[in-house]
Amino acid sequence: MPETDPLTWARDHTPVLESLREEFGESQPLSGYTVAFASHLEAKTGVAIETLHAAGAEVLFAPSEPQSTHGDVVDALEAHDGITAFAWEGMTDAEFDEAQHDLLEHEPDFILDDGCELIAKVHADHPEVAANVIGGGEQTTAGITRLEAMDEEGVLAFPVYGVNDTPMKHFFDNVHGTGESALTNVAITTNSLVSGRDVVVCGYGYCGRGIARKARGMGAQTIVTEADPRKALEAHMDGHRVMDMDEAAEAGELFITATGNRDVIRERHFERMPDGAVICNAGHFDVEIEVGALEALAEKTTTPKEGITRYHLPDGRELNLLAEGRLVNLTGPYSQGHPAEVMDTTFAMMFTAAYDMLADGTDLDPGLYTVPDRLDRAVASRKLDTLGLSTEGLTDRQQAYYEEWEHPDSSF
Amino acid sequence: MPETDPLTWARDHTPVLESLREEFGESQPLSGYTVAFASHLEAKTGVAIETLHAAGAEVLFAPSEPQSTHGDVVDALEAHDGITAFAWEGMTDAEFDEAQHDLLEHEPDFILDDGCELIAKVHADHPEVAANVIGGGEQTTAGITRLEAMDEEGVLAFPVYGVNDTPMKHFFDNVHGTGESALTNVAITTNSLVSGRDVVVCGYGYCGRGIARKARGMGAQTIVTEADPRKALEAHMDGHRVMDMDEAAEAGELFITATGNRDVIRERHFERMPDGAVICNAGHFDVEIEVGALEALAEKTTTPKEGITRYHLPDGRELNLLAEGRLVNLTGPYSQGHPAEVMDTTFAMMFTAAYDMLADGTDLDPGLYTVPDRLDRAVASRKLDTLGLSTEGLTDRQQAYYEEWEHPDSSF
Amino acid sequence: MPETDPLTWARDHTPVLESLREEFGESQPLSGYTVAFASHLEAKTGVAIETLHAAGAEVLFAPSEPQSTHGDVVDALEAHDGITAFAWEGMTDAEFDEAQHDLLEHEPDFILDDGCELIAKVHADHPEVAANVIGGGEQTTAGITRLEAMDEEGVLAFPVYGVNDTPMKHFFDNVHGTGESALTNVAITTNSLVSGRDVVVCGYGYCGRGIARKARGMGAQTIVTEADPRKALEAHMDGHRVMDMDEAAEAGELFITATGNRDVIRERHFERMPDGAVICNAGHFDVEIEVGALEALAEKTTTPKEGITRYHLPDGRELNLLAEGRLVNLTGPYSQGHPAEVMDTTFAMMFTAAYDMLADGTDLDPGLYTVPDRLDRAVASRKLDTLGLSTEGLTDRQQAYYEEWEHPDSSF
Amino acid sequence: MPETDPLTWARDHTPVLESLREEFGESQPLSGYTVAFASHLEAKTGVAIETLHAAGAEVLFAPSEPQSTHGDVVDALEAHDGITAFAWEGMTDAEFDEAQHDLLEHEPDFILDDGCELIAKVHADHPEVAANVIGGGEQTTAGITRLEAMDEEGVLAFPVYGVNDTPMKHFFDNVHGTGESALTNVAITTNSLVSGRDVVVCGYGYCGRGIARKARGMGAQTIVTEADPRKALEAHMDGHRVMDMDEAAEAGELFITATGNRDVIRERHFERMPDGAVICNAGHFDVEIEVGALEALAEKTTTPKEGITRYHLPDGRELNLLAEGRLVNLTGPYSQGHPAEVMDTTFAMMFTAAYDMLADGTDLDPGLYTVPDRLDRAVASRKLDTLGLSTEGLTDRQQAYYEEWEHPDSSF
Repeated sequence: MPETDPLTWARDHTPVLESLREEFGESQPLSGYTVAFASHLEAKTGVAIETLHAAGAEVLFAPSEPQSTHGDVVDALEAHDGITAFAWEGMTDAEFDEAQHDLLEHEPDFILDDGCELIAKVHADHPEVAANVIGGGEQTTAGITRLEAMDEEGVLAFPVYGVNDTPMKHFFDNVHGTGESALTNVAITTNSLVSGRDVVVCGYGYCGRGIARKARGMGAQTIVTEADPRKALEAHMDGHRVMDMDEAAEAGELFITATGNRDVIRERHFERMPDGAVICNAGHFDVEIEVGALEALAEKTTTPKEGITRYHLPDGRELNLLAEGRLVNLTGPYSQGHPAEVMDTTFAMMFTAAYDMLADGTDLDPGLYTVPDRLDRAVASRKLDTLGLSTEGLTDRQQAYYEEWEHPDSSF
Repeated sequence: MPETDPLTWARDHTPVLESLREEFGESQPLSGYTVAFASHLEAKTGVAIETLHAAGAEVLFAPSEPQSTHGDVVDALEAHDGITAFAWEGMTDAEFDEAQHDLLEHEPDFILDDGCELIAKVHADHPEVAANVIGGGEQTTAGITRLEAMDEEGVLAFPVYGVNDTPMKHFFDNVHGTGESALTNVAITTNSLVSGRDVVVCGYGYCGRGIARKARGMGAQTIVTEADPRKALEAHMDGHRVMDMDEAAEAGELFITATGNRDVIRERHFERMPDGAVICNAGHFDVEIEVGALEALAEKTTTPKEGITRYHLPDGRELNLLAEGRLVNLTGPYSQGHPAEVMDTTFAMMFTAAYDMLADGTDLDPGLYTVPDRLDRAVASRKLDTLGLSTEGLTDRQQAYYEEWEHPDSSF
Repeated sequence: MPETDPLTWARDHTPVLESLREEFGESQPLSGYTVAFASHLEAKTGVAIETLHAAGAEVLFAPSEPQSTHGDVVDALEAHDGITAFAWEGMTDAEFDEAQHDLLEHEPDFILDDGCELIAKVHADHPEVAANVIGGGEQTTAGITRLEAMDEEGVLAFPVYGVNDTPMKHFFDNVHGTGESALTNVAITTNSLVSGRDVVVCGYGYCGRGIARKARGMGAQTIVTEADPRKALEAHMDGHRVMDMDEAAEAGELFITATGNRDVIRERHFERMPDGAVICNAGHFDVEIEVGALEALAEKTTTPKEGITRYHLPDGRELNLLAEGRLVNLTGPYSQGHPAEVMDTTFAMMFTAAYDMLADGTDLDPGLYTVPDRLDRAVASRKLDTLGLSTEGLTDRQQAYYEEWEHPDSSF
Repeated sequence: MPETDPLTWARDHTPVLESLREEFGESQPLSGYTVAFASHLEAKTGVAIETLHAAGAEVLFAPSEPQSTHGDVVDALEAHDGITAFAWEGMTDAEFDEAQHDLLEHEPDFILDDGCELIAKVHADHPEVAANVIGGGEQTTAGITRLEAMDEEGVLAFPVYGVNDTPMKHFFDNVHGTGESALTNVAITTNSLVSGRDVVVCGYGYCGRGIARKARGMGAQTIVTEADPRKALEAHMDGHRVMDMDEAAEAGELFITATGNRDVIRERHFERMPDGAVICNAGHFDVEIEVGALEALAEKTTTPKEGITRYHLPDGRELNLLAEGRLVNLTGPYSQGHPAEVMDTTFAMMFTAAYDMLADGTDLDPGLYTVPDRLDRAVASRKLDTLGLSTEGLTDRQQAYYEEWEHPDSSF
């Protein structure tokens, strides 16, 4: 009965992965390699794992976040020979940590990571495993930040593609995937409108601008906070009000963090927020909102609706935190994870990163690398094909025009 | 423990109803009257019922749709003396019908209706009850359409306010409430993006334009079908592509009906749709999409994801119907119902309709009436107050300017 | 040489008028009637006058605003027998007034008006002419306001269609025509960006919402002031910040009035505006901005750029008034008048109003009338045809569904 | 009389340049250097030249486009000792070329260029001058393309900052400046609406996406053509329809090129366009539209409205070319040039490029350089200050979070 396969719907909506399975299902170019895969474990991730396996790899997988694992997906994947789970639904934080270490002890040849959890741990705690890893890929901004620091310190033991830093990833996953799913999950969880609301978006990177643009597109009055003066100006020109966080705390009703940093909303801001404010995180770790400070301020907490923790402050104000400060679009009660189309391109890029180093002969020194343009373009072309969209290349005269500088036949 | 009261969150987000309870909680102006209330039975409806009760009314309530009743809300309301439920979670269509008749046998003085179900039934099957009803209110476009037909036939036995036909209702409930919640529920149920999608909105009334505008605001390529040439032109000028349904069936990926009519998407359209199309209804009854014709075309159906029925056609195409063709924003698996803010103004208008005829001395002949401007304005002013927004009235000279026509001190 | 005909471009962009000339050019249904036409006198108006003439009417025309007449258009029209001008470029206010009286002394049978100038004057000063007028049409909101007052006082001597109050007029002319041309003219005249600017739109009627929506669509931070609480709420839900005028005066950089009333921006607001503020009017008469009060406050005025008057206030602030407070989209230095497409539908409606009473047998008592739906629909259908857009009517079952109320085959 | 100074309005709207004059007016850091400046010569450019001069430089200026020079600005600048014009209103193409050579013979120390005209000519024809140039800056995408080719060939004789390639330039000048002014000038020149129109934007670089986004924000149905598959996908996700140019030629009504390349619209496309199509260029040189091919196709040309050339094709179709295929936003009949605010940041960046190499000790080998982040940030901070917008830097803990990778106090 096809309807009981938890991967069916995701398979239908990941045409780029489908085209990879079709191309590599016979030639099995990843045969002989063990690939570790960490991500939020739901149906789309399952299809990515299936695709690596279809191309010949032995796959070990673990969650990147303990709360977001779907048990039925884990079960469906484990049914395959050559796929091993280090994950189950309802893991504690301790179990999550331990499972990652277990996975690493199985000595993967390649690590496809989410948040740099596996890569940080293999370097910190399993140096002998790290020494034999051929390469890796990382799909989040926050993970890249950690990898940059590792690269700067010179501690990376193998080459890693920063998959997050490709145009394809930014446009699809961050701007559109996080942008839409953050708003959708907030709207469903709070049963409230986005239109007419004073929405504060903290951070104007790719995620933040997606959230802010779409909130504005729905009819919100948007406010952006941003530490970088250039991004702040860009937000201003895009029609958002720019404030510092103290001002924004007073002016906002709904607060969404998307910075990749910590303590973006902290005690001084909770003190300024209006009664009834809704606060959530669409960045990465649960450190963007200083939940501990909010707990310290509150007299008690209640649960007015599933997925919402209400902090009752001594002055009578009630502040509402969604998904405990974890990623609202991935861990909220109604979350289906990122939209399938965006994960399709992100996972295709992750696959391509592995294929490039393992099967296509690319040999790199240890370090953090941006994904070469040729790989990004290849995924873009696959995606365009699946959409049936037409572009046309440059004519010879146009190509020549880019390459010359005298412009001899320009009319002046 | 406040968190276990299923009405807490809704109460927090319905400030207009709160201000009515505050104003009328002591004077009890509805004391001595029995008010029937039909609506989708969830937390916001609960607060509306509570508000009528707080103002002194005996309240009888029934669902307007058999699938959307929340049992915990029914339980919380039934705990009050003077509130009687004709509803439970999981009613069959037959039970739903029977409960409405039971309710009507309790001889309400006033009927606040949703879809004209109670009002049509009291006239058709309980004429002796209808004869003693003082008045009614109706909150949906589809219900008004039925009331207009009844009024034209001269069969209405009492006066009814068409609450749906007020600026407040259209702007809040239809444009913003249905507009946002339809898209949110589609996005969550299908786990797909709205951006970049060819979204066909059938109908460009208040609901349709809300859906189309917000889909466009999220980044969709919108297509509108509309039978009225003026609305079709308006859609065109608002940046949507206008097509007839045959063309749209071929061009679309996601189809959302919002017409208040039947068979909007029917056999000839299913035959033209691309493989993988997603179809849903945000209008009113489950007749907008001709589900029977789709069933007749299909070889089998499966359930690829909760809330989605997949029709496998003999030519290999798979069409996906959400929420069985019922209202996707109210009956889908993740639905929280309309956003609380919009129900706040709609229910405040329904309350005001009852208050006006029962307690404020308005005496009308049988027939369908538009809600008087003074009532709509009163609710608008209450809502503005709760938002803390400032407007200022006209100066005397400005008021005079509207009233004169010679414009003696205009400069030419 | 076709390029020297000042009406060529306008003719190309008014396809609905073209279809009227084609249909009525031979039958000459307006033959024997004299039609007075007042409007801003530029190329599109010329084509409207030409169209009335082509259908057989004798046409008398005068400007509705003394500053906006294009001499070449007047010359081109006067070349026709049967068209008489009461207009020239560079009229003074006194000449403008006198010319209107001259025109009225020629005893028109029908008056197509803009701002109710001719209709008010014929009643006030030429009652014997008014007594023989068959009917009229009025195309502006401000004109309708004056007509409503006249109708209420019972002084109207003939029937007048309020052409402004049709869906076609509102959607095309007010929302899109004024909305775009006001912004375009401000941007060109001030050589400044709309994006990133705090734009205050005074009034949220059809013109105001067009301006506000499009300013927001360009990237502005919009603020709306509005005396009507319902429109204020609508603006809020559409994503604009709502303020009273005192607050807005402090928060804004660019101010655009669109209320149809007087003194919308007055002394108390000038006193609060920031240095460099730009102020303009897109409503109707030059009374929306209290220019006299601004002059009284200023120490001197200069002209920093064509079309801009700068008021130097004693406290050092400089306020910039565009187009002397007259309509910025019609009288500014770069103005081309309303976009041709919107005038096409507006003038087609004006033509239809005249045709209906003069040639199609509609006989009405004196008073102000809304344009019958059948006329508005006819113009909408003509326009749709010129756009090549497809709509389809209701099926018989759908038509029946609207007319019945028992819904016997609804599934519940 | 201040109103007769053609630079007054531009000075008021270039607060960043004002802050540079204030900071460097006394210290005169550019004293002793001759700076060549090529750009469209209107008021804003005048203020930039004035600012270089105020900081001590001797300035030589020439136009970057022969058609766009404002004579009054040239006169006002020439009144200063130490500023020399190689420009006058109404230059022919030959005079334009000659004036650039004249300028170069005056041996500038630094060249601030627009389109790489001066820099290409100094290398091609004045190698001995080039040998002594200290450095340069280039402000357009098209110019950078030529510089990249020169750099690759190894022919550059001095270091050049690619000022175009900074976030500040892209966001302000390309996206917002070209985006808005292209649409504004098309709307005024054609007296037509953007809403409801099928607008084809050729190229989805910074200019193209600004035009497309704002056209969509006004209510257009946008179509994007783009050779790069990634940009094509981005356009698709942003809600534009993506087509190849053959398809777009048939579907569009208004065509705007913004590619920086040649022959984007050529014979095969003219052959497919509908009657009445409007075609214009907002890219760089007048080679984007193959005007020669259009001329060859046409039987005759007329001028239906100022700024519009109409090509009458043998099959009866009429195609309308704006501004002769030159930059519609800069050379159209109503053009005021780029909005002042965007030129303020662009010119501030050009100033900063000169200041950095001439006065701040930066010493670079010949070649093309991206503007260092520190310079871009400095301009961004100046701009934020002039807007009165608040941002706040990272806290120490946040700064540390970016720099560490173990995240020891993350909660999991």
